[in-house]
Amino acid sequence: MAIRIGIMGYGNLGRGIECAVKNNPDMELAAVFTRRDPATVKILTEGVSVYHADEAKDHADEVDVLILCGGSATDLPVQTPEYAKYFTVVDSFDNHSKIPEHYANVDAAAKPNGNVAVISAGWDPGMFSLNRVYANAVLPNGKDYTFWGKGVSQGHSDAVRRVAGVKDCRQYTIPATSALERIRGGETPDLITREKHTRECFVVAEEGADLAQIEHNIVTMPAYFADYDTTVHFITEEEMKRDHSALPHGGFVIRSGKTGWNLEHNHVIEYSLKLDSNPEFTSSVIAACARAAYRMKQEGMSGCKTILDIPPAYLCAQSDEFLRAHML
Amino acid sequence: MAIRIGIMGYGNLGRGIECAVKNNPDMELAAVFTRRDPATVKILTEGVSVYHADEAKDHADEVDVLILCGGSATDLPVQTPEYAKYFTVVDSFDNHSKIPEHYANVDAAAKPNGNVAVISAGWDPGMFSLNRVYANAVLPNGKDYTFWGKGVSQGHSDAVRRVAGVKDCRQYTIPATSALERIRGGETPDLITREKHTRECFVVAEEGADLAQIEHNIVTMPAYFADYDTTVHFITEEEMKRDHSALPHGGFVIRSGKTGWNLEHNHVIEYSLKLDSNPEFTSSVIAACARAAYRMKQEGMSGCKTILDIPPAYLCAQSDEFLRAHML
Repeated sequence: MAIRIGIMGYGNLGRGIECAVKNNPDMELAAVFTRRDPATVKILTEGVSVYHADEAKDHADEVDVLILCGGSATDLPVQTPEYAKYFTVVDSFDNHSKIPEHYANVDAAAKPNGNVAVISAGWDPGMFSLNRVYANAVLPNGKDYTFWGKGVSQGHSDAVRRVAGVKDCRQYTIPATSALERIRGGETPDLITREKHTRECFVVAEEGADLAQIEHNIVTMPAYFADYDTTVHFITEEEMKRDHSALPHGGFVIRSGKTGWNLEHNHVIEYSLKLDSNPEFTSSVIAACARAAYRMKQEGMSGCKTILDIPPAYLCAQSDEFLRAHML
Repeated sequence: MAIRIGIMGYGNLGRGIECAVKNNPDMELAAVFTRRDPATVKILTEGVSVYHADEAKDHADEVDVLILCGGSATDLPVQTPEYAKYFTVVDSFDNHSKIPEHYANVDAAAKPNGNVAVISAGWDPGMFSLNRVYANAVLPNGKDYTFWGKGVSQGHSDAVRRVAGVKDCRQYTIPATSALERIRGGETPDLITREKHTRECFVVAEEGADLAQIEHNIVTMPAYFADYDTTVHFITEEEMKRDHSALPHGGFVIRSGKTGWNLEHNHVIEYSLKLDSNPEFTSSVIAACARAAYRMKQEGMSGCKTILDIPPAYLCAQSDEFLRAHML
């Protein structure tokens, strides 16, 4: 029997989950929940109902795993502990510094109710975290590097949109090739922010706006751009639509470490992602974690889990026997 | 209290384990076991005893995890089931096609004795297997590629050494850059053997040997070289010693896969290793698996496990809380 997936929140991530469910034959979409008027939400999957979020609890029996697609700033800190009381849940909470607090809150809700809750599924946190942990386990004497991009940063794009005279913006984060090459060569440099990434903004300005002033306001913006080398390109609305509608992303996790009696040998472990669609890849990781959550719940486990707690085989549709025979 | 490690077999891998134990502060070397005369085996760690392999069972109380450093052809199929009766063990069994059989034999020995046995720890099988499984779990619609090298293949070096007129050989396996670049670009070509790797042999010939004949015998050797483009270089014994004493290796695991309602988006996941010392890196993975085996045994688990069954956090010395706060 297929794993019945519920989706809470139908934005970019919710649609990505819907696609991931379609592409995983052992899953089926059971229901979509929204805070909007359900009548206004048109989903892609035929024959599946859209309910108001307030009704979710009433459908707990129809859903094996509820995937929470809200934002990390205000939605998930409330939603994940709330729904973990009634459902096996997965979220993609990505506010790294608040993970311990979120973990504690979710664990306190899930455990007494016998549910499994997987938090922070995605690629960072998620696949990148896994690679940091594996590389640290294997090479205790070493140094970690994480680079992001090339890809669209929604937060930085939003920040530029708030600059006076800016109508629209797409901001790309770009890893510095020179730094990557040094680390791949076995060097372990201490890099400042400016040496790791550059930023590139494609901006549609309001008619008659002072372009030089806009550029100045962007490149000097504290926290977002002041510490980076930033390039600003002014483009038309048509160019924005034509060339910058996609949400690509990716990045690199590298650990360079030493082994040997006198640490005389160097090793470089590198993991990289090159993603055409950030929300769809994130959704694909979440779907695999939903499978694992379902299995853990079936086995009688409960409480909050992260991808660091999940045996890799639990994420895969194939049997343990198949994995040992064909992938090990 | 440190995890007490025993080493069975003191060759390249055994020495690598000894170095890994030194570099992992939560481990200590308890004993080394050898089939040679223990008096002739000089180890690097001071104050640790070398015993004959036949005495191993008598020292079961002094060892938390016994690491089996024999070969996969004849040693491990016997040793791992045998020692799994008395010890928590880890091996690096790397005969991919016989893993299911080895798993069954080891499980049958470990489980009734309440021991944990981790098999096939290393990088392939091992870290590469993990990456194949994670990438398949996340991108069910896709294609896998594994490339090895640039690195020394012991099996191929040995094969050349058996050619008449050859005194010594070091054979390097080299991944084809052109194939790698196509796959990184999102293509999913069907590649024949010759398109994936090339082979390069550095050969010391016997004095007066027919070099043209040696080269012919190498490049046409079935199974080992006939299906590859192979280059043969004749060098002196001095050059061999000076330039080819190290055992570097590495490789790439890449999965290219599609997501979206109509599979319209492509993603490339790549994992790569660049290793100065193949045996020391393999040993480092084994050491991390020994830590996990120790913890699983402490929790009351038993039976045969592979790295696909181990929650990633079990491999790391740091606490779950630390990992969530700093690496997730």
